[in-house]
Amino acid sequence: MPRSSDARQRMVGTAARLFRRQGYCATGWRQVVAESGAPWGSQAHYFPQGKEQLAAEAVELAGARYEALLREGLNDSHPADFIEAWAALAASELEASGWADGCPVATVTLEMAHTSERIAATCSAALLSWRQSIADALMAHGLAAADAASLAALVVSGIEGALLLARAGRDAGPLRTVGHELGRLVRTRLA
Amino acid sequence: MPRSSDARQRMVGTAARLFRRQGYCATGWRQVVAESGAPWGSQAHYFPQGKEQLAAEAVELAGARYEALLREGLNDSHPADFIEAWAALAASELEASGWADGCPVATVTLEMAHTSERIAATCSAALLSWRQSIADALMAHGLAAADAASLAALVVSGIEGALLLARAGRDAGPLRTVGHELGRLVRTRLA
Repeated sequence: MPRSSDARQRMVGTAARLFRRQGYCATGWRQVVAESGAPWGSQAHYFPQGKEQLAAEAVELAGARYEALLREGLNDSHPADFIEAWAALAASELEASGWADGCPVATVTLEMAHTSERIAATCSAALLSWRQSIADALMAHGLAAADAASLAALVVSGIEGALLLARAGRDAGPLRTVGHELGRLVRTRLA
Repeated sequence: MPRSSDARQRMVGTAARLFRRQGYCATGWRQVVAESGAPWGSQAHYFPQGKEQLAAEAVELAGARYEALLREGLNDSHPADFIEAWAALAASELEASGWADGCPVATVTLEMAHTSERIAATCSAALLSWRQSIADALMAHGLAAADAASLAALVVSGIEGALLLARAGRDAGPLRTVGHELGRLVRTRLA
């Protein structure tokens, strides 16, 4: 028999998927509850602080998943190769989803960061953890801490921006282009 | 006496401002009509195709304004200097607005590009015009067309992504960092 905390966890997972596709504002409780198979009414029990709480937990989940993926990939490859592979993977996922599945944090950030301190803090923590994953790998390949942090900020910004360009144009080209540019730059800086 | 088309134009300008701050979904007709001082009901006359039409026109306006700003700035400065100045300007605007005024096109793109073909096309045209402004300046400084297009895609992606990081962290640091990284890279590639 499923424990009640399973329903809560399913709601967070469903919310993470919906926020990634359609953003915060367009995602209502009705859809989250229906798609997670939770009983109507349970949302008030599980998330007494409302949709803001759900969003913060969904962003946290998505951020941690993505950080794990980055750290694992960076452990196995040269950072320049990994960054190109990451861009190519993001391109495939975006294409396969009909241009819906971009960054799991970006849409919520742009909609909500200036009005909700809690959501801003969670989005920021996720983005920082990704930057730190890249920076750690660059340092492990010999870059000084300040250079690694600066280059990592450009890498994460570049991929985020390329996801935006790709969604607008419904074309993965910019992601592949930016992946190559970043790979090339990282290779030069680590040489 | 103001012509009726002035009210229409004010509605588009107000919508552009609101979409930039709060996105598509959170911006309702009531607020657009009220803040533009237009008579209630006139929206149905001016925008028979609804909010999608308003959004497409607002994105078009914001895109053209930004393109003019880029072309003017690039005309007056070396591309590397301009890109750093652009990032610094975006940082100041974002900070002065309480972390609300980021890219005028990004939020609408992430919310709507996969569901509205019309909005996707307008967002894409705006982003492409900005990339082309940068690419033209890079070509004027001697870069081959393919290299210029590729580097311009990274520049626009980098600034867009840095705006996202800055909004999440309510900190303009990433914009300044990414501006320096991009300026440095452009200087190297044009040398």
